[in-house]
Amino acid sequence: MTIPIVSIVGKSDSGKTTLLEKLIPSLVQRGYRVATIKHNVHGFQIDHEGKDSWRHKKAGACLTLISSPACVALIEDAARDYSIAELREKYIKDVDVILTEGHKGNPYPKIEVFRSQLKRNLLCRKEDNLLAVAADIELDIGVPCFDINDAEGLADIIEGNFLKNR
Amino acid sequence: MTIPIVSIVGKSDSGKTTLLEKLIPSLVQRGYRVATIKHNVHGFQIDHEGKDSWRHKKAGACLTLISSPACVALIEDAARDYSIAELREKYIKDVDVILTEGHKGNPYPKIEVFRSQLKRNLLCRKEDNLLAVAADIELDIGVPCFDINDAEGLADIIEGNFLKNR
Repeated sequence: MTIPIVSIVGKSDSGKTTLLEKLIPSLVQRGYRVATIKHNVHGFQIDHEGKDSWRHKKAGACLTLISSPACVALIEDAARDYSIAELREKYIKDVDVILTEGHKGNPYPKIEVFRSQLKRNLLCRKEDNLLAVAADIELDIGVPCFDINDAEGLADIIEGNFLKNR
Repeated sequence: MTIPIVSIVGKSDSGKTTLLEKLIPSLVQRGYRVATIKHNVHGFQIDHEGKDSWRHKKAGACLTLISSPACVALIEDAARDYSIAELREKYIKDVDVILTEGHKGNPYPKIEVFRSQLKRNLLCRKEDNLLAVAADIELDIGVPCFDINDAEGLADIIEGNFLKNR
């Protein structure tokens, strides 16, 4: 069965990562295995300069893998900016749900984080597959509106829509 | 076809990573796609504290993926200390050869790096699937002996045994 994807979207500094830090443990406590995807359009530096694995990659390995008894890390050249579906297909198995941070233009169900002090409009509407909003004010836009800290309520929505009775 | 594996083994400080830094570009220049595997029995810290992906993983995601147009990185919990064959099966596709650093106890073909000033014996013998030695002295042990800096000669051995006419 295809692993469901839910994207946490929102303007810069709206609190997407902070919400994920509450939502992930809430789903994990319910017994689900959660994967996350973060997109960095400008690239990223993950390995530490001078480490053996960093030296392998710098020497021209197209893929470097580091393994330990508890964890595996992989750094691989990308042929292009893969879509979320391609990343799921290529890299993700044996999890119950994938939460992405950002990727607001994708077709998957979304939860938008909204902070009124940023004085900006919502990024998404119901038609953009907006499942719910996590906001610091009440919003009436035709989708459920949760308090910005209500990870349990949002986990209920994800569980009810995508995880129960699968 | 199964991707061939060659392990670069040797005592601590013999220069395994330094040899790999020469061997990888030599194979890449010949048109091969090279993957590497590094084993860290004591675990490793790869992501940078405070980064969004680090926060996802710390919050309980069993897998975190970071994507950019040029590169993908994945950090995943391991159920156990996977064998090289399991890592190949789970994580590595579309490369011509896998070079591992260490893993001296594995059954795959090996190149041992030997530095006489360490005043230690060789780790492997011909019977351990030792393909060649890269040493700073001449060694007569029934397998080809290359200079410790002769990446081209070692690449010839790897190419001749595992990459040509595949």
